[in-house]
Order: sequence, then C-alpha cells, then structure tokens
Amino acid sequence: MVQAYILVQTEVGKAAAVASEIAAIPGVTSAEDVTGPYDVIVRAEADDVDKLGQLVVAQVQGVNGITRTLTCPVVKLG
Amino acid sequence: MVQAYILVQTEVGKAAAVASEIAAIPGVTSAEDVTGPYDVIVRAEADDVDKLGQLVVAQVQGVNGITRTLTCPVVKLG
Amino acid sequence: MVQAYILVQTEVGKAAAVASEIAAIPGVTSAEDVTGPYDVIVRAEADDVDKLGQLVVAQVQGVNGITRTLTCPVVKLG
Amino acid sequence: MVQAYILVQTEVGKAAAVASEIAAIPGVTSAEDVTGPYDVIVRAEADDVDKLGQLVVAQVQGVNGITRTLTCPVVKLG
Amino acid sequence: MVQAYILVQTEVGKAAAVASEIAAIPGVTSAEDVTGPYDVIVRAEADDVDKLGQLVVAQVQGVNGITRTLTCPVVKLG
Amino acid sequence: MVQAYILVQTEVGKAAAVASEIAAIPGVTSAEDVTGPYDVIVRAEADDVDKLGQLVVAQVQGVNGITRTLTCPVVKLG
Amino acid sequence: MVQAYILVQTEVGKAAAVASEIAAIPGVTSAEDVTGPYDVIVRAEADDVDKLGQLVVAQVQGVNGITRTLTCPVVKLG
Amino acid sequence: MVQAYILVQTEVGKAAAVASEIAAIPGVTSAEDVTGPYDVIVRAEADDVDKLGQLVVAQVQGVNGITRTLTCPVVKLG
Repeated sequence: MVQAYILVQTEVGKAAAVASEIAAIPGVTSAEDVTGPYDVIVRAEADDVDKLGQLVVAQVQGVNGITRTLTCPVVKLG
Repeated sequence: MVQAYILVQTEVGKAAAVASEIAAIPGVTSAEDVTGPYDVIVRAEADDVDKLGQLVVAQVQGVNGITRTLTCPVVKLG
Repeated sequence: MVQAYILVQTEVGKAAAVASEIAAIPGVTSAEDVTGPYDVIVRAEADDVDKLGQLVVAQVQGVNGITRTLTCPVVKLG
Repeated sequence: MVQAYILVQTEVGKAAAVASEIAAIPGVTSAEDVTGPYDVIVRAEADDVDKLGQLVVAQVQGVNGITRTLTCPVVKLG
Repeated sequence: MVQAYILVQTEVGKAAAVASEIAAIPGVTSAEDVTGPYDVIVRAEADDVDKLGQLVVAQVQGVNGITRTLTCPVVKLG
Repeated sequence: MVQAYILVQTEVGKAAAVASEIAAIPGVTSAEDVTGPYDVIVRAEADDVDKLGQLVVAQVQGVNGITRTLTCPVVKLG
Repeated sequence: MVQAYILVQTEVGKAAAVASEIAAIPGVTSAEDVTGPYDVIVRAEADDVDKLGQLVVAQVQGVNGITRTLTCPVVKLG
Repeated sequence: MVQAYILVQTEVGKAAAVASEIAAIPGVTSAEDVTGPYDVIVRAEADDVDKLGQLVVAQVQGVNGITRTLTCPVVKLG
C-alpha cells in the first residue's frame, strides 16, 4: 500500500468546491483547504505507485477547477 | 484579529486594474503594484484565519484578472 | 484552534531523523517522510495563528537538520 | 522616491530577531514576521532604485540570519 | 550532437496522452510519466542547441495538453 | 535612466513570435529566445522605475502569447 | 519494481564530481550533468517506493556536494 | 558559437563583488547587479554547449559568494 499527500492548486475562487469534491473520491482519506502556495492538501492511498498515479490523473485531476497537483508519496525510511 | 500580506499574480496587462479593484474591498488596507514575481501586494485584516481565508477566496479572488494569490499571515513571535 | 500542515525541507541525509524528532513535539499530530520537493510533511495544531508561528519557529525549527519550513494553515471556507 | 517591499527568508529559528533588527534600519518603515514561503516582509524607501539596491545589500542583508531577500519595487502604473 | 532532458508540465488529466504523443516525435528517445512537480520527463537529441530549441518549440510544444516545458541540455564537464 | 532585464514566459509554441514582436517595442534594446525556465530574455530601459513598470505592463505584456514577465531592474551598487 | 528520475542540485563547482560518484551507486542506471535549474539528472530503480526513498536518502544524498534532490517516480498511467 | 544568459544568486551582501569578479572572466561579455529573485545577470559565450558548461562550472562558479547559477542558452528559433 502506498500513501501520499497531494498538494493542489486551484483556479481562483474554487478552493472550497474542489476540496469537498476531492474528499468524496474513493482512496482519498482527507482534503482540506489551506492558505499559502497550495489551496488544498489531500491525503490518499493506493495499492502501488502506478495505481496512485492513476488515482491522481484519472480521479483527482478530473475535478473541475484544479490547475496543478503535486503528488508526494510517503516513504518509510526507517 | 489576524493581519496578512497577500501576494497577487495577475494576467498580463491587468495589474493596475486589479490593484485598484482590490483596494476597494472591505478589510483590505492597501494594494500596490510591484515589479518582480508578484504583480500586486495587498495588506488585509480579518477576525481570524478562517475569516481571512474567506476574504481571500470570496472577495479578493473574485476580482477579474487574478491568476494566483499567496496569503502570508502576520505572526507575532515575541 | 488553528490547524496547519508544515512542509519541511531538510539537509541531505537527515529526513528520517528530522521526522521522528518533530513527531515528538507537543502540538504535532503527525510527521511523515515524503519524496518530492519537500522531505517531511507535518500536521500540527495551536490555539491561534501567533501560537502556531511560535510553535514552528521555537519548536519545529529547533530540530537539527531542517533548512526550510513552509506553514500552510488549514482554513474553513464553508 | 522609490518604495519597495522586501520579502525575506531567514535561517531556521531566526525570524523574530531578524524582523526586529531590520525594523531599526533607517529607510525601513515596517518589518513583520509572516508564515509561508517568506519569513519577514519589509517595507522600505530610498531616493532611487540604485539607492534602494544599496540599502538592501549594504544594510538589510547585513542582518545576521538572513539567507535570501527578494526586492519588489512599488510602481505607479496609473 | 546535443542531448537534453525536457521536463514537461501538462494540463490536468492529460499526462498519459502527452507522453505517448511526444514519444513518437523524431529525435525523442524516451518520454515517461512521473509524479512530482513535472508530469512527463523526455529525453531528446539534436544536432546543436539551436536545432534542439526548434525541436522543443516546433515539435514537442505542439503536442496538445502541454502547459510548460523546461529544457535541460546535457553537458560533458570532464 | 533605469535599465532592466525582463524574463518572459510564453505560451507553448509562441517563443519566436513573442521575441521578435517585443524587439520592436521602443525602449527595448534586445529580446532573445532562450531555453530553461524562461523563454525570452529582454533588455529594456526607461526614465524611472514607474515608466519601466508602465513599459512592461502597457507594451511588453500587450504582446500576444506572453503568460508571465519577471522584471529585474539593474542596480549600481558601487 | 519502481523507477525514478532524481533531479539533483549541487554546491557550485561540484557537478562533475557528483555525477560520476552517483553513477557508481548500485541501483543507479545513469547520472548526467545538465544546465538549468538542476545540475545532475539521475535515473535509478528500486524494489518499491520505500526502497527508492532509502536509496535516495542513504546512498545518493550521501555523496559530498549535493544540496537538494527531487525524486520523480515513473508511473504507468496506461 | 553558443551564447547564454547566466542568472546568478549570491550570498547576502556579496552581489557587487561577485558581479565585478565575474565580469573579468574570459568569455563573459557583461555582468550586472539586479534586484529580484536573482542578484547578478551575466552574458557569456563559448564554442559549444559543453564548453559553456565548463565555463560556468570551472570559472563562474569558482567566484567566491555564488550560491546558485541558472544557465539559459540563447537559441535561434527562426
């Protein structure tokens, strides 16, 4: 299982709608609005890194109002 | 009360119009055109960080010609 | 109460040690190693935005091996 | 007279000391700690753009704990 | 002969189509989807740096769905 | 007199046309296509920093195909 | 098996030495000097995303002269 | 012959000394201090892209006080 944070930038004025729509996608465990260079921070999980990529491109990026996503897979270094 | 700087990027050619329109929003105390990676630097204040986020998304980002905003809340570290 | 994500960059080779040390700071609810432009993503909470700023500067940034932190306060836009 | 915002990044843990030291420099009208990609936002003024550059390099960048400054001159587009 | 990596950002949801279309351009030796700040990483070669620039602007950037490309010529420093 | 470099990003496929159109603007002394994070690097001069800002916003940004400009005024520090 | 590009920034003057040292690390399939915002582009592979993270932090980042690495895992979206 | 702009970041307080030292390097045709995200903008030329890379790494980056350089080769797209 791979977990990841997805840092999302949205079109102006769309952050709240984007966060609530992303939160409903299967595999997404949280989606919150933030201030700063990103507008929404998402946490998601998938079976492997390919499935994670497909989740981001096919599901998350399909939400209207997203301009960029930056996927940061969690790694266990210990 | 929370104060913040909002660093604004605009569509090309729109900086002057954006600054004067933002300056008229209640809660905004200044809005000036600058050169560099940002086009307009705004100073605003709100009751708390949620109200500040709502001011940015609902009011500032509603101004035509804005492409990105970066909110930097002022913090008192002393 | 203010919640925030803190995106952390570390010196090369220090990510794992930094994450486990940050995880032990009171007010921090998670700290995970990630790949990409950031090395560790932290979730923290504080009474208000000033307290959050103090937590970051006085506690998180005191961890050896951190080079930059980027604090993204969670905002409720609804 | 040229006015400018100076966006300052500091070494970890140094933001508060840097802001109060910059605030005492002649030509600086304000210096506040912020969260986000920058640590301190300064407002300053000088006779012209060369004097502004000299103020930044010789005075502001002389403050211990600064790692980068980004000068954004205010421009009157109207 | 000049070789280069081209780091490509795409519109949301377009990464897979962009990569397979770029892969078919003469002079391109590979084009793979990645996660992170870039969406596709391309390797290409051309006779000289002007031809490389023309390949990027006339061929690669002609692919529908690309928003930015960043060309990094390989250099032999030894 | 203020001199400046203007780092320009263009829409994909538009770099050559943008450079030649900018080169014809009064006050612009050179405009060349480059590879890397910017697409065109321009050198321009104006009477003062306000006039420079107006040149950029009213003339340079009026060229079709530009997405961002970053103005870097030359400063004499000696 | 996970494959990745690793975009490396080095201390000034260290790019050639860093590339040749990284090229000798098991799991690394190529390491080339480039111009632009990155100094060396590496291709590597590992059993899974955790092993990839460990390769980067324990092996690649152990090379003297590296200041930042940005890992971009290859994803199969098809 | 390859021409290039080199965008240089320096340690705080070092911009003027860096610019005058770079200006004396053979192959460098100009080196000027600027404000903004870069501190010095250099123009240089070399026989080919490999020689340009060597000039940057062996000569320009050897100047004391430089922290990053970003080489942007000029390309003729016409």
